[in-house]
Amino acid sequence: MPFALDPAFSDSAITLGDFALCRVLLQDDARYPWLVLVPRRPALAEIIDLEPADRALLMDEIAAASSALKALYQPDKLNVGALGNHVRQLHIHVIARFASDPAWPGPVWGHSPAVPYAAHVAGMTADRLAKALVPHGLKEAHP
Amino acid sequence: MPFALDPAFSDSAITLGDFALCRVLLQDDARYPWLVLVPRRPALAEIIDLEPADRALLMDEIAAASSALKALYQPDKLNVGALGNHVRQLHIHVIARFASDPAWPGPVWGHSPAVPYAAHVAGMTADRLAKALVPHGLKEAHP
Repeated sequence: MPFALDPAFSDSAITLGDFALCRVLLQDDARYPWLVLVPRRPALAEIIDLEPADRALLMDEIAAASSALKALYQPDKLNVGALGNHVRQLHIHVIARFASDPAWPGPVWGHSPAVPYAAHVAGMTADRLAKALVPHGLKEAHP
Repeated sequence: MPFALDPAFSDSAITLGDFALCRVLLQDDARYPWLVLVPRRPALAEIIDLEPADRALLMDEIAAASSALKALYQPDKLNVGALGNHVRQLHIHVIARFASDPAWPGPVWGHSPAVPYAAHVAGMTADRLAKALVPHGLKEAHP
């Protein structure tokens, strides 16, 4: 069974490209710089469903996403989370948080409905983030 | 500067022991089987503040905590999160979640005030979890 992205992500996120392990998505919520990493392996729900070598890759890719968000946005805090209570396919959120953002200091998940990017801003933001991730090994979906 | 646990954890958690990298705490909320891993290094706020070798250890210890919770509680889902919006010292939550728990399917953080364990249950739960973590390398605080 090959990897297939859960269709739930198609409505809520924009594909930036692929790391060695993960597909990298931009969450379509203009209020938070927010990446989602989806390991490109079939039938995963938990981090412990990954082989140890893939878990090591995942940590490297979480660090890469974190570093890119930190460099671009200089957030007050990074939030990293693997929940999956709604969408079961294993995915890891990496989010730049600010003391001035709507959900601070609470978690963003479940806080309030997403505010999608305006179309022209979505494209620019996706491009900016993808370019920042390329030095960390991203192969861009739309270079 | 040596490692020191943020005093905020003393009021909300029970120390189970130490992994190679992390101090392992039981969150004092009887509604959720909930471990907190605190890397025993000074002055950390983000996962990317860890050296790469320590990040690899952290992933191993997240997996160990996850495996122990899964084996003991057979949860519907594991939630793993590094937030730190309230307590800045780097710490990682590993939580066994159930479709029947009070916060499901939302995150536990910020949902509602903790319901502390009754004293005798706290001790039994801490002991049970510590014993389950020893095969994963935990050195118990109170063996």
